[in-house]
Amino acid sequence: MEASAYLQPITKTEQGLDPQDWAELRELGHRMVDDVIDHLATVNERPAWQEMPAEVRRRFQSDLPVDGEGAEKAYRDFQQYVLPYAEGNLHPRFWAWVIGAGSGFGMLADMLAAGINPNLGSGDHAPALVERQVIDWMKQALGFPARSSGLLVTGASMANIIGLAVARHVKAGIDVKENGLFASPARMMFYGSDETHNSVVKGLQLLGFGKQSFCPIEVRIDFKIEIAALRDAIRRHKAEGLKPLGVIGNAGTVNTGAVDDLAALADLCAEHDLWFHIDGAIGAPLAISAKLRPMLRGMERADSLAFDLHKWMQMPYDVGCVLVRDEAQHREAFSEGAGYLSRMPRGLCSGERWFSDYGPELSRGFRALKVWMCLKQHGLRKYGELFEQNTEQAGCLAGLVESSRELELITRGELNIVCFRYRGRVCDEQALNALNRELLMRLQEQGIAAPSVAILGGRFAIRVSICNHRSRREDFDLFVREVVRIGREIEKSAA
Amino acid sequence: MEASAYLQPITKTEQGLDPQDWAELRELGHRMVDDVIDHLATVNERPAWQEMPAEVRRRFQSDLPVDGEGAEKAYRDFQQYVLPYAEGNLHPRFWAWVIGAGSGFGMLADMLAAGINPNLGSGDHAPALVERQVIDWMKQALGFPARSSGLLVTGASMANIIGLAVARHVKAGIDVKENGLFASPARMMFYGSDETHNSVVKGLQLLGFGKQSFCPIEVRIDFKIEIAALRDAIRRHKAEGLKPLGVIGNAGTVNTGAVDDLAALADLCAEHDLWFHIDGAIGAPLAISAKLRPMLRGMERADSLAFDLHKWMQMPYDVGCVLVRDEAQHREAFSEGAGYLSRMPRGLCSGERWFSDYGPELSRGFRALKVWMCLKQHGLRKYGELFEQNTEQAGCLAGLVESSRELELITRGELNIVCFRYRGRVCDEQALNALNRELLMRLQEQGIAAPSVAILGGRFAIRVSICNHRSRREDFDLFVREVVRIGREIEKSAA
Repeated sequence: MEASAYLQPITKTEQGLDPQDWAELRELGHRMVDDVIDHLATVNERPAWQEMPAEVRRRFQSDLPVDGEGAEKAYRDFQQYVLPYAEGNLHPRFWAWVIGAGSGFGMLADMLAAGINPNLGSGDHAPALVERQVIDWMKQALGFPARSSGLLVTGASMANIIGLAVARHVKAGIDVKENGLFASPARMMFYGSDETHNSVVKGLQLLGFGKQSFCPIEVRIDFKIEIAALRDAIRRHKAEGLKPLGVIGNAGTVNTGAVDDLAALADLCAEHDLWFHIDGAIGAPLAISAKLRPMLRGMERADSLAFDLHKWMQMPYDVGCVLVRDEAQHREAFSEGAGYLSRMPRGLCSGERWFSDYGPELSRGFRALKVWMCLKQHGLRKYGELFEQNTEQAGCLAGLVESSRELELITRGELNIVCFRYRGRVCDEQALNALNRELLMRLQEQGIAAPSVAILGGRFAIRVSICNHRSRREDFDLFVREVVRIGREIEKSAA
Repeated sequence: MEASAYLQPITKTEQGLDPQDWAELRELGHRMVDDVIDHLATVNERPAWQEMPAEVRRRFQSDLPVDGEGAEKAYRDFQQYVLPYAEGNLHPRFWAWVIGAGSGFGMLADMLAAGINPNLGSGDHAPALVERQVIDWMKQALGFPARSSGLLVTGASMANIIGLAVARHVKAGIDVKENGLFASPARMMFYGSDETHNSVVKGLQLLGFGKQSFCPIEVRIDFKIEIAALRDAIRRHKAEGLKPLGVIGNAGTVNTGAVDDLAALADLCAEHDLWFHIDGAIGAPLAISAKLRPMLRGMERADSLAFDLHKWMQMPYDVGCVLVRDEAQHREAFSEGAGYLSRMPRGLCSGERWFSDYGPELSRGFRALKVWMCLKQHGLRKYGELFEQNTEQAGCLAGLVESSRELELITRGELNIVCFRYRGRVCDEQALNALNRELLMRLQEQGIAAPSVAILGGRFAIRVSICNHRSRREDFDLFVREVVRIGREIEKSAA
């Protein structure tokens, strides 16, 4: 036998990333668990948010580490520079944008996921069955039929993109996968209220439709889509030679938590043969609560539904879900064969359905595990109760605002979002906007609470979005007191 | 003051997801750390993969949990039904597809990320600075200029999509964000070798281009793109009235690890004013190694570069990265304002750059932390050494295959991928394909090793892709011995 040209001895001692001494890593792991649990258990003793000192900011400009400094040093950097200056959404008075508060058990589940570290793109293994089961549970919880399919994604932005991509595949009337949108004889149109989240417009842009393909429809006084106006737009566009493709219904808008009349939208879509997609990022999971479910009537008729699990479902970031009514359509829209993805009848490379056939990603983390474990831990009912609790709290806050001479309630939707402002004796709208802007920043800077912004009819509103399982009635009392105190301060100094 | 209609007492005792007793959760966390560390420390004593018994599969069909069963039970289910049947990529002889092996410290970093649980879409906080620093480090490591930008994503599939979306925005010659592709007078074209990963075609489909917009160019004997053929195609398409937009270079193809002549592609793109995108999912990080860097010459000239960190960089799933040479172009392609995303000069809602302006996602987990902490722990140099080690191991394996009378080396690229088959005395090609298919499945079923498949020129090849910091020389010895043993078994039983 001739010596192969390849057969060279490995010259160096082989090495890896595993520690020399597992006991050290184990000990560090124990310390981390203790430290984070301490952090979680005492979160309400700390500010809701705090500004990073310039010295901390500078730390993040250091050069690329060429030589390692070891696990201990890396952890110390985390403790000193990251932990105290995190976003703040663990805090009971964090109500900015729409952000969940996570949970200690969810965190531990995510550790297990990273520990066994599967790629959920392909193959036959238990993690794939965990994700499939989570999707099955979501179908059951939200009233989707057994023949529907789904996928866990980073969040509702991606879920919207996938739903709208399936819509395009099914309704375009041309072979978009093969030819793209170039072949279209007419501009394709999607419709949704003008309160629709900008991730929908961004999704349509990504899909090659452009902003012009989204027709924003006016809302009624309660921020729900005006169905008659939608009907007119569809009719008008058809007459103009445009091609209506689908309607996006909102189950919980970002500004006010409004839920469109989903049943009416489903009827209209059926009538005009349009795809019915729902952006239920915030509100879709409310179907879990028997009390809140009625406002979502019609959601179960959607062709595709996008929602988040890291928002009101309190799973650690990031995890959202898309459901698609017809599995075959979902799969057709995304599957593309390749030799290196060959399926075998047995072994690792087997399995009937690979998730990479249902979305754009071939590499996919095990975000299903935290959902699976948290649902097993708490049961679905508990989440329903928390939705009701947050909704009641929003009612309380609205009441506190209304009872105050100095505050003005701007909107209080059906759900968890309250928009208001400090008024005092200020009458000028511009001055009010400036005052409330300053007020919002001081609330955050002083670590009191972290609401965010809504601009409603040109008015700067302090927007409180309560999807937080740690908030309690006394947090709202304290918050309103402090808003009034700071508002007076600013009003006085401006006078 | 009138009583508000909203001011209703909260009727129930408020509750949350935090445990009654943090000590219990703490204790469970400690146990989980111990169990996973034990699992990691003994991974080579277990099979590389194992089939789930039917009884275990059935477990994943249970109904939606309405009532919680508690943390202990949820964890027990994980231990019994998930842990033993994971994908297998922790194992030293897992070489399927292109999948990293993770690390214990990376796992702990992911726990911390889930613990503080920020949303990296928006806001001013330390986690945002961590991601920015990781991107800065990647720019430095891969030779990108200071004015470039980047984003961490789920993996190279998404990174490719983002790079190609910026290409579309910059090179289309029409306002795609506003009007979409409908307004295009001509089909837009992208080019790449016919060994390009299917995530690129899927990305182009998602972006609305269709498969017809990807022109696959033949490769040379070494699986690198034939530059002359690419030049001809561009010229021909221009003459036909098509609109060439960009070229996708490969830095490590999935089948054989081939790296295109990136400098020649950069020249060609400059000459024809085309966008130069590189899919460096596997190979881009090799620039870390001074020894391997020369084969990537020209990579630093790309307009956009996609690569994975959960593959050869061994970060836990999922994390990939896209770099874009021109920050303004990157931002323009993805930013869309909205009132609820208003930026304040101070407080939580401040910050110069929000990541949601650089990609389609508004909800984004803290995948930066594991990268930040692991790079601090090991230093960049260590990763370079591991790349060299895996590349040497591939050389050894190729040598072992060549030295065996019964095996046939099909390809051995420059990097970490070896494709071969058992030949024995079988001459019929169809019989050889069937034999090697069976051989691959038995290797997996018997838990010996987990390679995957490549189909090369119609030949079924056992594909060994070594991006595994746990593989050692003796693993390849054992593997080759077992391949020959099983090959003979099958050959004999077929005779």
